[in-house]
Amino acid sequence: MRLARHRLSLADATPPFFAGVDLGGTTIKIGLVDKLGGTLAFTRRPTEIDKGPDDGARRMSEAVTDLIREVGLGPQDVVRVGLGTPGTMDVPAGMLLEPHNLPGWFDFPIRDRLAQYCEKPVTFANDATAAAYGEYWLGSGRDFRSMVLLTLGTGVGGGIVTAGRPIEGEHSHGAECGHLLIDYHDTARLCPCGKRGHLEGYASATAVIQRTREALSAGRDSSLQRRANAGDAITPLMVAQEAEAGDDLARELVLDTARYLGIGIVSLVHTIDPDGVVLGGAMTFGGHDRPLGIEFLQRVRDEFRRRAFPVLADHVVIDFASLGGDAGYLGAAGLARVDQQQASAGPEVSHA
Amino acid sequence: MRLARHRLSLADATPPFFAGVDLGGTTIKIGLVDKLGGTLAFTRRPTEIDKGPDDGARRMSEAVTDLIREVGLGPQDVVRVGLGTPGTMDVPAGMLLEPHNLPGWFDFPIRDRLAQYCEKPVTFANDATAAAYGEYWLGSGRDFRSMVLLTLGTGVGGGIVTAGRPIEGEHSHGAECGHLLIDYHDTARLCPCGKRGHLEGYASATAVIQRTREALSAGRDSSLQRRANAGDAITPLMVAQEAEAGDDLARELVLDTARYLGIGIVSLVHTIDPDGVVLGGAMTFGGHDRPLGIEFLQRVRDEFRRRAFPVLADHVVIDFASLGGDAGYLGAAGLARVDQQQASAGPEVSHA
Repeated sequence: MRLARHRLSLADATPPFFAGVDLGGTTIKIGLVDKLGGTLAFTRRPTEIDKGPDDGARRMSEAVTDLIREVGLGPQDVVRVGLGTPGTMDVPAGMLLEPHNLPGWFDFPIRDRLAQYCEKPVTFANDATAAAYGEYWLGSGRDFRSMVLLTLGTGVGGGIVTAGRPIEGEHSHGAECGHLLIDYHDTARLCPCGKRGHLEGYASATAVIQRTREALSAGRDSSLQRRANAGDAITPLMVAQEAEAGDDLARELVLDTARYLGIGIVSLVHTIDPDGVVLGGAMTFGGHDRPLGIEFLQRVRDEFRRRAFPVLADHVVIDFASLGGDAGYLGAAGLARVDQQQASAGPEVSHA
Repeated sequence: MRLARHRLSLADATPPFFAGVDLGGTTIKIGLVDKLGGTLAFTRRPTEIDKGPDDGARRMSEAVTDLIREVGLGPQDVVRVGLGTPGTMDVPAGMLLEPHNLPGWFDFPIRDRLAQYCEKPVTFANDATAAAYGEYWLGSGRDFRSMVLLTLGTGVGGGIVTAGRPIEGEHSHGAECGHLLIDYHDTARLCPCGKRGHLEGYASATAVIQRTREALSAGRDSSLQRRANAGDAITPLMVAQEAEAGDDLARELVLDTARYLGIGIVSLVHTIDPDGVVLGGAMTFGGHDRPLGIEFLQRVRDEFRRRAFPVLADHVVIDFASLGGDAGYLGAAGLARVDQQQASAGPEVSHA
């Protein structure tokens, strides 16, 4: 396996080449990737939201051109660009709708504008979908035929790949894994979307902070209370630190988060029956590199196995993602590659 | 729209032709279907489980041959056979594993055996998957790009079609919709699979009988109690009859079933984001033909809308299936058609 950002020399690369663009609220990541997923060049540019989406598309295109020149390729060697953006969006139309992370970049035809600036076709995807495809192509999912990525951060997102293709959904809302319903009772926790019982109301960073506050309000003795009294803001990092230091409540908060994820994964797996489920994002407690991350993963697996349909409980792999913040641009490039192969392979099977 | 079993004359039919076989525990349904989904001929044969699976495959092949002769086609005009069977199964291997409805037909290579007898390639699928494809191709889902079928009966099953293809799952367990987890608490109802909180433990016929018994044991006044006292067995039909007669408890049992289904559909829709969800099977309380069925459907929709992510709550269609017991053989024939088109279109996009 080639590591994601391992710098591939042009002599070792396999054409054709693709550009992958991962548009975030703060940073745009852009990489040039060969047919096998090796990265020839990478750059990171500030999003500068206040300059607006047209200027953003122009600067993405400039960055792609700069990388092409830096590597010593000709403009025609990069055959297609992949672009992942946060939602809400309309994937078939190539539109940003109302992306919360990009205030003001609303109702904007980002795909076609970037294509005009680049003078190349652009494949457009949700950023979590792109990250899922990246992990599937080059990361923890590279031995899977189908997989689900759960992105664990401020919210809980996801992406699904089956039969070599992401499930974008008919309303550009496929893999809204944060909104899986895990508790139908009226007493269920409130999700930031305003409905009750969704996974995101239990397992997101926001939910961990909320659950911590509730436990401290209920008078639980904990080093978290002492840090809060000393003026520290309650954050998932603080909870992780105190859990690693052995605080009972902090450990319980981390492992309950794992438990809720395992519960959500049951419904995902019973629907999709993938080879594996991959956990990425900031809320993975250090992943395989830290004992807390390993314990977290084990609890996710245990809870899933305890509740899943037996055959699936035994065979579906649950693991951490392995590409970190590179999954997005790599996956966007990979989806561009899929579209380029499809374009040269002819029409798909029709409905009627 | 052509009705499913509307008898199509050969003069009006569009080649190529396909045979669809729907293997059940009691009956095998076999139809000859043209390229557009019209049925040229149909027959129904007893499964005769005790004669074993090899004899079953032989008799399926004979029935196909009989239909071909009856219609006046040549053996080569039917280019492929589709076969749907109950699970458990291994779809890629073409094997029946341990189908509960076919005792003794265990670990049997049904696909290849049928292909030998028929001297035609056979497409193999789960019966709920085949039914889902039938509804997608010719039934309530014919205007959808992607859809989920929930089959409501003794258990709760399902099938999913996205991008023109069913999600079979990597372990032949895709769309185990009855095992969506809707309540993670330790007090959740027990599913027949032995785990807690799965939809099937709430919304199947078995669950309705169980919930009825519990309500009567708790002393609820109801005409159901009077019928039970008179020696009638508690069945979903009895519950439906008393609900239609206005009994409060019976109505509550029916509408709570709808509520649980709406809850399960939230997780399905947040994962797949289909155009529509279609409800089929015996537990649909008469469907559009009866006031109780219409009220049942409205409750499913209301519960879904109340709990789903807003954009999806507004746009995903929930409706009854329209092909009834024909969905299985029609869908099996349709999947054969997809494979035949694929075989003539060349290789798919590869993973690496």
